[in-house]
Amino acid sequence: MKEITSVNNNYIKDLIKLKQKKYRDINKLFIVEGYNIIKEAKDYLNTILISDKKKISEIKDNYKNIDIILVTDEIINKLSSTQTPQGIIGICKYKEVSNIKGNVVMLDGLQDPGNIGTIIRTAIAFGYNNIVLSEDSVDIYNDKVIRATQGAIFKINIIRTNLLKLIEELKKDNYNIIGTSLGDKSIDLDKLHVKAKHILILGNEGNGISKEVLNVTDVNVFIPIDRQMESLNVGVAAGIMMYYLRNN
Amino acid sequence: MKEITSVNNNYIKDLIKLKQKKYRDINKLFIVEGYNIIKEAKDYLNTILISDKKKISEIKDNYKNIDIILVTDEIINKLSSTQTPQGIIGICKYKEVSNIKGNVVMLDGLQDPGNIGTIIRTAIAFGYNNIVLSEDSVDIYNDKVIRATQGAIFKINIIRTNLLKLIEELKKDNYNIIGTSLGDKSIDLDKLHVKAKHILILGNEGNGISKEVLNVTDVNVFIPIDRQMESLNVGVAAGIMMYYLRNN
Repeated sequence: MKEITSVNNNYIKDLIKLKQKKYRDINKLFIVEGYNIIKEAKDYLNTILISDKKKISEIKDNYKNIDIILVTDEIINKLSSTQTPQGIIGICKYKEVSNIKGNVVMLDGLQDPGNIGTIIRTAIAFGYNNIVLSEDSVDIYNDKVIRATQGAIFKINIIRTNLLKLIEELKKDNYNIIGTSLGDKSIDLDKLHVKAKHILILGNEGNGISKEVLNVTDVNVFIPIDRQMESLNVGVAAGIMMYYLRNN
Repeated sequence: MKEITSVNNNYIKDLIKLKQKKYRDINKLFIVEGYNIIKEAKDYLNTILISDKKKISEIKDNYKNIDIILVTDEIINKLSSTQTPQGIIGICKYKEVSNIKGNVVMLDGLQDPGNIGTIIRTAIAFGYNNIVLSEDSVDIYNDKVIRATQGAIFKINIIRTNLLKLIEELKKDNYNIIGTSLGDKSIDLDKLHVKAKHILILGNEGNGISKEVLNVTDVNVFIPIDRQMESLNVGVAAGIMMYYLRNN
């Protein structure tokens, strides 16, 4: 079995670079950590690095075709982004993008990894098949997003692209485009009736959906709330709308 | 105007101790920071510490009966819990507890400050008047909770108490007790009809509501989700239930 003991090993130094989006994009690889997330990531795993000798035989049994390397705790700590690493790190290939089938959640400029993680989990829970992120949204291979999704990113088709172009394309396929805003053409969520496949669009935490995208929606909805509050958390708003739309 | 320049000043040293729950509880005081939250905290403010000389006259005008002290950035940094402090810190009195009137959200053992913050904001948005926390829930005067609520804790009655005793009392007042769980007496949220005032109970992130509390609910509800997911985030689940119950 392969073993690496130095943090200055060139391969390890290359892996540490995967903490930066630039290097993830070049290598099409990203880091996951912890036993649970590695289990979810099984189909995407390239290599497992492990420091706990007692667990090696179990890991070897469960991940037969995957490169497993024994490393030191120091190496795990260098690769980990948590304060108390579990002693196991996975190196995963980027997910391949599938064509869009079924309903879509679209995220326009979301920045908070916790919000994106929560929305991805909720989308899977309510039967959505696709998450589409605008190009200025936070990277889904960011360690905080992966932790927040608890591995759920492996269960859904995720695309990062230009939203306007994709909406134009999907409109030809009879998708209903549902925005969220408080503007002129907005209706109370209660009044929304959707029969066809739909795209539900959620906007940036501070500024909402961009004007260009709001221009191409079929309808915009809002959730009526007490005037003491300016807005709901975007993950909560997303959850309420997906629950409302779940039987479409 | 009062001015303090040393972090070793005894008053400042006492304030720094307010970062610990023990000292907050003894003094019935807690720290808030940033211009927006201080604005929300107005009725509870005891003292304002400010390092930005340009803002002093504005602050003096807006907070007439409040002690304002000019301090150094170093003092602000010591009192702050954020990486980029705004140069203003407020010292607030603990909120007084009011009697319970109207609907109640009850949190049984919640630990994540972000979840509690989100639930408090959502509760206000949907017209709830009271948040009740079990004694083992995270402290609401914790800096992370205050940041997550964005000052919303000042807009709602918040009580920390023994849940079982309070439920017993409120049952006499005809409150409907709604738990959340997947157990035997659980029904789909869709099937829930509540006519009277209600208590909506949410449980700990990992373990849900404690057995003792589930024993005294009138009904337990669940939100049906895709079997690929184990559960929804508790803040999202809370939002969906409060939205569903909003017209009660």
